[in-house]
Amino acid sequence: MNETIGFVGLGSMGVAMALRLAERGFPLRVWNRSPEKAEPLVRQGQARAERPEETAATGGIVVSMLADDRAVTKLFGANSPLLSRLGTGGLHISMSTIHPETSRRLAAEHRAAGVGYVTAPVFGRPDSAAAGTLWIPVSGSESARGRARPLLEALSRGIFEFGDDPGSANTVKLCGNFLIAAMMEAQGEVAAWAERSGLGAEAVMGMLSQTLFPCPVFQNYGKRIVAREFQPAGFRLTLGLKDVELAVAAARAVSVPLPLGSLVRDRALAAVNSGHANWDWSSLTLESRVGAGLPQKS
Amino acid sequence: MNETIGFVGLGSMGVAMALRLAERGFPLRVWNRSPEKAEPLVRQGQARAERPEETAATGGIVVSMLADDRAVTKLFGANSPLLSRLGTGGLHISMSTIHPETSRRLAAEHRAAGVGYVTAPVFGRPDSAAAGTLWIPVSGSESARGRARPLLEALSRGIFEFGDDPGSANTVKLCGNFLIAAMMEAQGEVAAWAERSGLGAEAVMGMLSQTLFPCPVFQNYGKRIVAREFQPAGFRLTLGLKDVELAVAAARAVSVPLPLGSLVRDRALAAVNSGHANWDWSSLTLESRVGAGLPQKS
Amino acid sequence: MNETIGFVGLGSMGVAMALRLAERGFPLRVWNRSPEKAEPLVRQGQARAERPEETAATGGIVVSMLADDRAVTKLFGANSPLLSRLGTGGLHISMSTIHPETSRRLAAEHRAAGVGYVTAPVFGRPDSAAAGTLWIPVSGSESARGRARPLLEALSRGIFEFGDDPGSANTVKLCGNFLIAAMMEAQGEVAAWAERSGLGAEAVMGMLSQTLFPCPVFQNYGKRIVAREFQPAGFRLTLGLKDVELAVAAARAVSVPLPLGSLVRDRALAAVNSGHANWDWSSLTLESRVGAGLPQKS
Amino acid sequence: MNETIGFVGLGSMGVAMALRLAERGFPLRVWNRSPEKAEPLVRQGQARAERPEETAATGGIVVSMLADDRAVTKLFGANSPLLSRLGTGGLHISMSTIHPETSRRLAAEHRAAGVGYVTAPVFGRPDSAAAGTLWIPVSGSESARGRARPLLEALSRGIFEFGDDPGSANTVKLCGNFLIAAMMEAQGEVAAWAERSGLGAEAVMGMLSQTLFPCPVFQNYGKRIVAREFQPAGFRLTLGLKDVELAVAAARAVSVPLPLGSLVRDRALAAVNSGHANWDWSSLTLESRVGAGLPQKS
Repeated sequence: MNETIGFVGLGSMGVAMALRLAERGFPLRVWNRSPEKAEPLVRQGQARAERPEETAATGGIVVSMLADDRAVTKLFGANSPLLSRLGTGGLHISMSTIHPETSRRLAAEHRAAGVGYVTAPVFGRPDSAAAGTLWIPVSGSESARGRARPLLEALSRGIFEFGDDPGSANTVKLCGNFLIAAMMEAQGEVAAWAERSGLGAEAVMGMLSQTLFPCPVFQNYGKRIVAREFQPAGFRLTLGLKDVELAVAAARAVSVPLPLGSLVRDRALAAVNSGHANWDWSSLTLESRVGAGLPQKS
Repeated sequence: MNETIGFVGLGSMGVAMALRLAERGFPLRVWNRSPEKAEPLVRQGQARAERPEETAATGGIVVSMLADDRAVTKLFGANSPLLSRLGTGGLHISMSTIHPETSRRLAAEHRAAGVGYVTAPVFGRPDSAAAGTLWIPVSGSESARGRARPLLEALSRGIFEFGDDPGSANTVKLCGNFLIAAMMEAQGEVAAWAERSGLGAEAVMGMLSQTLFPCPVFQNYGKRIVAREFQPAGFRLTLGLKDVELAVAAARAVSVPLPLGSLVRDRALAAVNSGHANWDWSSLTLESRVGAGLPQKS
Repeated sequence: MNETIGFVGLGSMGVAMALRLAERGFPLRVWNRSPEKAEPLVRQGQARAERPEETAATGGIVVSMLADDRAVTKLFGANSPLLSRLGTGGLHISMSTIHPETSRRLAAEHRAAGVGYVTAPVFGRPDSAAAGTLWIPVSGSESARGRARPLLEALSRGIFEFGDDPGSANTVKLCGNFLIAAMMEAQGEVAAWAERSGLGAEAVMGMLSQTLFPCPVFQNYGKRIVAREFQPAGFRLTLGLKDVELAVAAARAVSVPLPLGSLVRDRALAAVNSGHANWDWSSLTLESRVGAGLPQKS
Repeated sequence: MNETIGFVGLGSMGVAMALRLAERGFPLRVWNRSPEKAEPLVRQGQARAERPEETAATGGIVVSMLADDRAVTKLFGANSPLLSRLGTGGLHISMSTIHPETSRRLAAEHRAAGVGYVTAPVFGRPDSAAAGTLWIPVSGSESARGRARPLLEALSRGIFEFGDDPGSANTVKLCGNFLIAAMMEAQGEVAAWAERSGLGAEAVMGMLSQTLFPCPVFQNYGKRIVAREFQPAGFRLTLGLKDVELAVAAARAVSVPLPLGSLVRDRALAAVNSGHANWDWSSLTLESRVGAGLPQKS
């Protein structure tokens, strides 16, 4: 039988990932700041921890899927109960979208405590997590990556290795989210233009998503943008803004300006100011409508 | 046997399209400003016209695939010999990438001369033209579209109808090229960021083009950008700059700002200033390298 | 006594300039598309022309202060009645804000008709015109500049010579208006930031306009921006947008990208879309409020 | 006789300010990380401290003029020897350019230690500091501002009060530096445009700085930009980049996007990558030359 895995962070992605792991035979001990999020797992017989450190067994594995750098640092920083409990031989699989430097700092602190650290953020929505069809870039020490692999395989249809630097997989994740945000900005500008040209956004985006851009991410966001259906959110705008800001900051940390990142970041911030913080992040495209003098609502 | 079709404009796209038409049984009478470009067609037995108007028969069809608005207007404007020769019942299939307003103006002038005008710009490279696998948005009067269809079918694997407004298909074409340019800018920023992060652009772009963006346009440009292979050009930077400028101008004509269009346009202009006018338009991504302090050459 | 001067274009600037010239002893024959604008001049005894060409005497001087390139070209293009009437030895003092290329083309056409062409756009508002305290950059052939000078001196407190190229003074004018627009954009961003910081835009802009930027253009626009008093317009937003677009186009004509020009142009277009076409062009700063989630109105 | 004032941070601004204070009768005890910077003061009879805390007397005043938020936080954070030594009744006059939030946090920590905190960043170059003609925005508790005033008066020709919030004066300082950076970007674009237009940057900037923008900051930076004289630096590019980044971050902290700030920040970062980190920050305008295809060097 598999060893029990700790899992902290049960947002919409986290809970879907945990359920998938459970389904694939990994017994879990789970924790979330607001404990009711653990219900779907508890109902299936998984153990609930009262405190984050109780998810860990000495030398065991804990997976984290948390909201931001601060949350990960708070739970897994130097001298944290979680690190102490994991202890020598423990492993932390860090799957949140955070700054590469945060991973590097945490990895050093983990190493000092004898704990391995592997970075494995994910591409995909909750339904992909549930189906085990995420895409996962992974980086960290070879032994840590090796130990994490069976668990990552249960979650994904593709694992991409990016070497020993624990920051690398974070960079890849931020690159991907930046590309999606840039694509949505372009789609939003096209949609406003098509509409004011009297062509209709649907016809134009329809053709382009069948011909030049026949990829699900273009097609699915394109449909939301054309239909202006931003609720319920697949990925909330505030989280999207956070990721674009992380992208700009992480690129800047290696001295790279991202002018398109700056543009999208300013758009996303304006969209939050327009009151869409909890809408899907594709609602950043409403700002193109504002600039074009189109009504935000249909 | 099919009627003879006039074909003006034998650049790399035009010649490939004309060869495809000939192969599919359309006899051609061709013209190009620099006549040697007609050689591949003449060698296959197609007729060469000495002057543009000699491609036309009264009531016949002429296809144009020219460099820009000025060239189309010069050959097909009011009182042009070509229009006179086509005369009542003639049809002009206008396949160049031009401003929607140019098409609307030309269509009115054609109508006054009894000539039909159908707009049918194409998506695809010369190899797609040769294989008859272009994508074609089409607009103009219903009868004109109907008459053009067999010819367009010979060239394409998909025809998308955009109604009576002769400008509409131009708008769709510009929307598509703008999306490609925006995507390349995003890819260029990611490539510079990945390289300065020590990850290598190839690994990052490789993963993302297999997972989030498994579409040929992303993959093919991604490879060029990563390898920095911009010669020979598939589509020259000066033409790409022209198209992005047309996009910004056409959107502005319907009062739509395109901030991402402005950014890409400034990048493409800077890239021309860097000496890459005749390289592939994906060389606009070299400007991201400049800003990031990376050498332009490997 | 001075020779009679023709004057075409009696918008708010034109009429103020014409009144100033009349006051300084230049008899005028004036024309405007909507003739009622000539009233203030007619009441003072100046002659009214029924048609533009009637403002001209053979070998005489005509001043133009028109809305845009199209208007100047229409009145003064090759074969125009105005050019014919001016004839050999005539002089056109072209004071509108237009594209440098338009001036170069017109100058060539004037030269062919024996008419001199001098470019002399103005910096200042109607009250400066009335007081004869405009700033004027001037370019064109030396003889034309020499003949225009007494008239320009009556209007200005400073004339700046930019050589023989008739486009040069247009470029200088566009550079100046671009700088003002850029400054306003910066002020608008600062005002929104100061307000959301709880500091109030007035206090911050007040200090900065007394210390770092003690120049009237900063101070006066700063006051409008802080008070959000955009009516009546000193310079209408549509004209401001036109000038920023001319700046971007003129710089592009010499291969220079103006990223800040692109930004301001997109802002101004968005502001027109927000319904402020006839407000003062400083209302482009309201777009910074929109992006910051501040109400446009107080 | 005046009480002895502590002064930490003797960069080019700090040393000029300290010398001015000494000249105006304030005995000093000074400290700098690299001690040789204190020489000009020691030669004039001022005391040198071996450690930062030795500049402080219980209940006394310490002025800081440090490089960045980290340096100020390190010296004056909670439990720092400097805070302990200042003790109840002490006052810290914080004159560095830092984030408003840093000031708010520090002020709270000072309050807990019984120490007053007043924010008083400065506008001006070292020669203005030496002449006592800086401009100073000031904020913090009323009593702290009152006690700091005689000292600030010795340094400035104008003090502007911004209330109790210790972050406010930092915001004002960042607003000012952002405006200067925005103005330089606009000047750089104009200079490139004027040069490629064949007009020469000097003639155009010369006219505009006498007419529209007759303020020293425009004139002085304009001269540097036109002459491309960026060494020795008046204010180093790395510091300028830091300030623009602080501006973008501080505006974002109150949810305000600064698109022009983003643009200038990306320019400044590119300029650092071009190798100009230690040149004057006006060298960010060289990036406009790069984009325009002009040589960076004359």
